[in-house]
Amino acid sequence: MDHTDEKWMNLAFEQAQKAFELDEVPIGAVIINSQNELISEAHNLKHTKECATAHAEVLAIDKACKKLGRWRLTDCTLYVTLEPCLMCAGAILQARLSKVVYATKDPKAGACKSLYHCLEDSRLNHKCEVTEGPLQQQCSELLKKFFQSKRKKDNK
Amino acid sequence: MDHTDEKWMNLAFEQAQKAFELDEVPIGAVIINSQNELISEAHNLKHTKECATAHAEVLAIDKACKKLGRWRLTDCTLYVTLEPCLMCAGAILQARLSKVVYATKDPKAGACKSLYHCLEDSRLNHKCEVTEGPLQQQCSELLKKFFQSKRKKDNK
Repeated sequence: MDHTDEKWMNLAFEQAQKAFELDEVPIGAVIINSQNELISEAHNLKHTKECATAHAEVLAIDKACKKLGRWRLTDCTLYVTLEPCLMCAGAILQARLSKVVYATKDPKAGACKSLYHCLEDSRLNHKCEVTEGPLQQQCSELLKKFFQSKRKKDNK
Repeated sequence: MDHTDEKWMNLAFEQAQKAFELDEVPIGAVIINSQNELISEAHNLKHTKECATAHAEVLAIDKACKKLGRWRLTDCTLYVTLEPCLMCAGAILQARLSKVVYATKDPKAGACKSLYHCLEDSRLNHKCEVTEGPLQQQCSELLKKFFQSKRKKDNK
């Protein structure tokens, strides 16, 4: 395990905790550049913003584009606590990110390895390296805790 | 051909023309509700905003969520001049749109019929009806005109 990956995933995890505190599905993301500098961080705000596209990855990409003043993030890597969905995998390709690192699989909606392999599709005009695993257990447990508490509330 | 489809696609085409005037890839989108009322309209602003996610569909979805004050657009239909890419097809699923109508295929990146069939994937938690064809020629010709003028500039 790369310790740099753990460091940045830990920051993404802190973002996921912020989402948890807002009663949002706890997913966090950060973007760094090739000099290993933090460019942006964001967490899921779908319900808070009542906005269907306000996933952590899309918000982190939007913030990074704004900060760098360009739509191309070719020199950047995105860390995210859960495997990106179709929308977010598509946004990663649109932004030309060079690498994505996610903590834990999403067997129901993941578009990087689980249901689709969008980031490695040679028919598209961009490919993106994918790594799975840093802080897998920690990020997965936060998600489980969230959905268990949701079910408890629903059963009351 | 449904004349209502032509009417709304024409509005999406007007949006695409606005993108053309800004030297953006000419793609436009509109969202209507089940009472056949206009909810939002948008055009591609990727270069203008220097934002990788600023495709017409994402911008139209964001505006619709804001206007209606909710992330769920279950009662809505999206009209767009070009077949949505992976990011936009994913955003359409996230917003739970009931129907998408696009004018012309995108054989290189289309995620509704061409490269993927994302909107009709029974493994995902939402499916969306897809119709192709209204104002196909008109929307396709505007795109061709754009790319031809780009090539001419590049060759100078």
